[in-house]
Amino acid sequence: MVTILKTGTTEEQKKMLIRWFEDQGLRVNEYMDGDQVVLGLIGDTSRIDVEMLELLDIVDRVVLIEEPFKKANRKFHPEDSMITIGGTDSTEATIGAGHFAVIAGPCSVETEDQIIEVAQAVKAAGATMLRGGAFKPRTSPYDFQGLKAEGLKLLLEAKKATGLPIVTEIMNQDHLDLFCDVDVIQVGARNMQNFELLKELGHCDKPILLKRGLANTIKELLMSAEYIMSGGNENVILCERGIRTFETYTRNTLDLSVIPVLHDLTHLPVVVDPSHATGHANLVEPMAMAATAGGADGLMIEVHNNPPMALCDGAQSLTPKQFEETMERVRKIREVVK
Amino acid sequence: MVTILKTGTTEEQKKMLIRWFEDQGLRVNEYMDGDQVVLGLIGDTSRIDVEMLELLDIVDRVVLIEEPFKKANRKFHPEDSMITIGGTDSTEATIGAGHFAVIAGPCSVETEDQIIEVAQAVKAAGATMLRGGAFKPRTSPYDFQGLKAEGLKLLLEAKKATGLPIVTEIMNQDHLDLFCDVDVIQVGARNMQNFELLKELGHCDKPILLKRGLANTIKELLMSAEYIMSGGNENVILCERGIRTFETYTRNTLDLSVIPVLHDLTHLPVVVDPSHATGHANLVEPMAMAATAGGADGLMIEVHNNPPMALCDGAQSLTPKQFEETMERVRKIREVVK
Amino acid sequence: MVTILKTGTTEEQKKMLIRWFEDQGLRVNEYMDGDQVVLGLIGDTSRIDVEMLELLDIVDRVVLIEEPFKKANRKFHPEDSMITIGGTDSTEATIGAGHFAVIAGPCSVETEDQIIEVAQAVKAAGATMLRGGAFKPRTSPYDFQGLKAEGLKLLLEAKKATGLPIVTEIMNQDHLDLFCDVDVIQVGARNMQNFELLKELGHCDKPILLKRGLANTIKELLMSAEYIMSGGNENVILCERGIRTFETYTRNTLDLSVIPVLHDLTHLPVVVDPSHATGHANLVEPMAMAATAGGADGLMIEVHNNPPMALCDGAQSLTPKQFEETMERVRKIREVVK
Amino acid sequence: MVTILKTGTTEEQKKMLIRWFEDQGLRVNEYMDGDQVVLGLIGDTSRIDVEMLELLDIVDRVVLIEEPFKKANRKFHPEDSMITIGGTDSTEATIGAGHFAVIAGPCSVETEDQIIEVAQAVKAAGATMLRGGAFKPRTSPYDFQGLKAEGLKLLLEAKKATGLPIVTEIMNQDHLDLFCDVDVIQVGARNMQNFELLKELGHCDKPILLKRGLANTIKELLMSAEYIMSGGNENVILCERGIRTFETYTRNTLDLSVIPVLHDLTHLPVVVDPSHATGHANLVEPMAMAATAGGADGLMIEVHNNPPMALCDGAQSLTPKQFEETMERVRKIREVVK
Repeated sequence: MVTILKTGTTEEQKKMLIRWFEDQGLRVNEYMDGDQVVLGLIGDTSRIDVEMLELLDIVDRVVLIEEPFKKANRKFHPEDSMITIGGTDSTEATIGAGHFAVIAGPCSVETEDQIIEVAQAVKAAGATMLRGGAFKPRTSPYDFQGLKAEGLKLLLEAKKATGLPIVTEIMNQDHLDLFCDVDVIQVGARNMQNFELLKELGHCDKPILLKRGLANTIKELLMSAEYIMSGGNENVILCERGIRTFETYTRNTLDLSVIPVLHDLTHLPVVVDPSHATGHANLVEPMAMAATAGGADGLMIEVHNNPPMALCDGAQSLTPKQFEETMERVRKIREVVK
Repeated sequence: MVTILKTGTTEEQKKMLIRWFEDQGLRVNEYMDGDQVVLGLIGDTSRIDVEMLELLDIVDRVVLIEEPFKKANRKFHPEDSMITIGGTDSTEATIGAGHFAVIAGPCSVETEDQIIEVAQAVKAAGATMLRGGAFKPRTSPYDFQGLKAEGLKLLLEAKKATGLPIVTEIMNQDHLDLFCDVDVIQVGARNMQNFELLKELGHCDKPILLKRGLANTIKELLMSAEYIMSGGNENVILCERGIRTFETYTRNTLDLSVIPVLHDLTHLPVVVDPSHATGHANLVEPMAMAATAGGADGLMIEVHNNPPMALCDGAQSLTPKQFEETMERVRKIREVVK
Repeated sequence: MVTILKTGTTEEQKKMLIRWFEDQGLRVNEYMDGDQVVLGLIGDTSRIDVEMLELLDIVDRVVLIEEPFKKANRKFHPEDSMITIGGTDSTEATIGAGHFAVIAGPCSVETEDQIIEVAQAVKAAGATMLRGGAFKPRTSPYDFQGLKAEGLKLLLEAKKATGLPIVTEIMNQDHLDLFCDVDVIQVGARNMQNFELLKELGHCDKPILLKRGLANTIKELLMSAEYIMSGGNENVILCERGIRTFETYTRNTLDLSVIPVLHDLTHLPVVVDPSHATGHANLVEPMAMAATAGGADGLMIEVHNNPPMALCDGAQSLTPKQFEETMERVRKIREVVK
Repeated sequence: MVTILKTGTTEEQKKMLIRWFEDQGLRVNEYMDGDQVVLGLIGDTSRIDVEMLELLDIVDRVVLIEEPFKKANRKFHPEDSMITIGGTDSTEATIGAGHFAVIAGPCSVETEDQIIEVAQAVKAAGATMLRGGAFKPRTSPYDFQGLKAEGLKLLLEAKKATGLPIVTEIMNQDHLDLFCDVDVIQVGARNMQNFELLKELGHCDKPILLKRGLANTIKELLMSAEYIMSGGNENVILCERGIRTFETYTRNTLDLSVIPVLHDLTHLPVVVDPSHATGHANLVEPMAMAATAGGADGLMIEVHNNPPMALCDGAQSLTPKQFEETMERVRKIREVVK
């Protein structure tokens, strides 16, 4: 950690700060850069609260050198993590360390027929997990909020029918009891920094799929993973699903460079969700292929069997048939990459 | 609501969609713009799920004309809302409809002496409410998370000592019982779209201070207010505290144009927090003055009495003395504005 | 084009506006949406100045339906454009309509040996064009601004030695004479909306490589292409090179979803530059592969033969050897995609 | 300057880099932070090309301590700059060092009557300079590009009629001859990093109003000022006019915190343009007041005398009457601030 003091810091102020650092067990390497004092701190700086330090009027900036995440840090865990999902009441899916997973299914669970039909279709096309929203985060309180507990039941029916492990989103730690038979618990982008929820999931024994928030940096994503891991649950799957930028043509801007960046920084597997990121069905296949070529450990794709609002053929987000074609091309890309 | 269909939509697809709209009780005004069909929808479109509609392959875009927020909408509530805080076990503070409120206090509650001393100082300088963090959202699980329940107790001591109503952040709906004697419950930026928390606060009888999320639009802020209001609690105070942009010199980018924009769109009062937005003590006064001149209904300012980490004089964020000077200048600006 | 009027517009104001539209030869489809008037405009709206229209106090919003770009619009030119580069004093390179091009070379031209050596290496690895900066846009006036005219001469030497067509950046329309023997003229991100430069390039007979600005939307990129094309030069190659977002880990955020989006909107070829976008050598290969899998028509990659500042082996951006490996993997991905 | 090396850098690589730094006349303070080498560089680092240094594979990050701008830097020029405009063929306007300037006028110069009428109105209301666009940067090549040379003539007529110095935008260095009698030359946001134009303006003896680019940081703005100042022209006025963010309600996001930040970093005066930033007439007054309260040295406001497209009364951007009222309130705020 490097602490850069402001021009005009008095000798006495500097000395008090150095003494305080030394009291924390750190050695201080001091020198001048122009008219600013630079303090190189040597030792275990993990107990220093950087935000507090930056509040000091005499501190210009603090530069971190070691990353503040530990459990998620590849430096301390050089091997890729491999996470195994399901296996007792479902087939087994594996992700990470060379294993590729495809999570597919509808945005929302609607009816038993719908979810079972989609589950069968995506399984046939090669998906290894079934997704489906039961609790739905919606911007407006007046929009459909999902079938909730009933939706979870229908997902479990689909699991029974197909054997696919299921992935679904939690929005409230008080609902955890309902998620007993869920295979992977998803934390949505809007809850990526709902620290109370993350802490609770740290005490849980299920893999967590953690989506990057719309305005969250790569490092914040890793710190949120760290919240879960530091509670004891080290089975975290990271998911890029687009960030918010000035561009409005796509719903969000899919940031695929996070794949190799995350692979550098952490041993955790990285999944990409091109459906939510782009918001356009015709962009899903090219972005699924790009994510695969860029080294993603898995994909999360929305597939609908019946058109929304029972409208007409061809009006769907991504049909099972389109998904099947996408899967074929993804498999070929995967051959090149692995 | 205007629905624009894609080039290449078949006559049959268009008819099915029009029939579906008519089934929802809407009249449809159809015409061509170049080679695209434009459908103007007349009637109560509030039950239409826009995100679902946009999922349809034949739909290019949906343009909303009426705003989807109702309880928060100035159109249906032309008078400014005035919110009265405290009054039984504290002095009364009023905000909105011409009443200006100043909420001041430390980032975190640390000790009884600290919080009472700051409370007395900010009261003397003209603050009408005391802020202080007991539950602290922190990016890192390894950083100080606040004194929690103990911090709430200390805040109540400060309220008893000074009479100032207190404002403090909630992070978990399960903690609501602890907030019985809190006067205003704050929802932090990271929880602005924690819909489960918002719903719970909708059933509560205390004013809510709702902070804008780092990547949330003005309309999303209003939809989150709507979550609280639609549950029955109409005492919502909106708070701008900076958004995330490419600029890194300031911690966030304070977006002061939201003040007049929100005053156009809603009757709810608008508070500005220049401390969190800028992250630099020397920017707080000019931005507090700018916010006041721009028409804010109140300010939220961090004030520390003792230097962080007991370091040295003059190393503090904003001292009670600096706060007093800022308040004097803010009062003069306020004279011009009101 | 749809024009939505504000609540409170008087009958007379509305009539004056409708009359004005009719004077422009448009038919007006008028209806109410709640308490707002919606005017659907039918006919050739291309002469309407939307920014001026939005300045009107009675106008809430204007929604464009037809895209304002014409020459670049796929609607009016459904076939992919194929652009052929060089061929008289160099080998021929082709891009677009199924042809894939790879532009490689150093950031800056430094010496004759350097540029010829890199040119030979990238040619051997499969590059079809040579890039190299002679005029360098630099944030600071005190940084190296390139070898300028001398750099162009060295590039031409490298072309003579290898036969590779050359691509290099122009920063000033007054330098056009110096670019006579350049094969593709590049417009850098910072000049994407230097409209005077674009107009001048519209009268030139060379292909233009137009880089997307750091904060420019996809539609603005197309409007800048339109500036060049409307002057008569229809050989425009679009280039994604990252946009500016809140994320600071990578230099910019590479937005690969623009590839399929641009392929939908325009017939022009799309190239991706992963070197500038990411700013990290180890991210170049995965992003080059991702861009190829996402359907890019070409890549632009920085390759250095000697370490910057003559330091030490292995300290280079992307060495010819690394480039060769990347090219091999890109070719395999390309097999799957085409 | 601090250079942080990557984990895994060999002893030999480190030594070569240190030797290179020493060859540049720098002393190197080396220590370990965890497993990374930190090199503190002492001496004149201004000749080090940071971007080149960061290209080195062994370099993790470079942290600048001294700012790379010199002429614009308050450190080397502690007194506020005061810039005097006009005075021979016009009245004198002063900005900076406690002097407040108001630049007002229409977006585009349209007719002699229009520009003279607006000039008289804004002068009467207290404006000290007249603005008006003759050369207009437009996103679309099909939109009105301004009256060009003819527009400049009309502006000079308005100057003759009212005595107000004039401010107008240049888009092409080849037009400089036409700007002989212009008092302040404006560089628009899209040209903030048109370095060739900036260099040319550095050899000119007129004050330059430099607008911040839509995606440019505060430091980049200062580096662009440095381009002009290092050429010999030190009369640069900085202008904040909104940056591009995810928020779409306002045209851009006005970043008022730049006022005190720029006042810290530089001695140059800072002007705010609330008209372009917000894009809504009703937001101009509150943001003009906020900018003034935040310490701006001047304002730039669009005022129209006749409604755009000759439509109807009350449909204008900001009428002379509204401007007069805004000026009155701004003057009162100014009383408090100065």
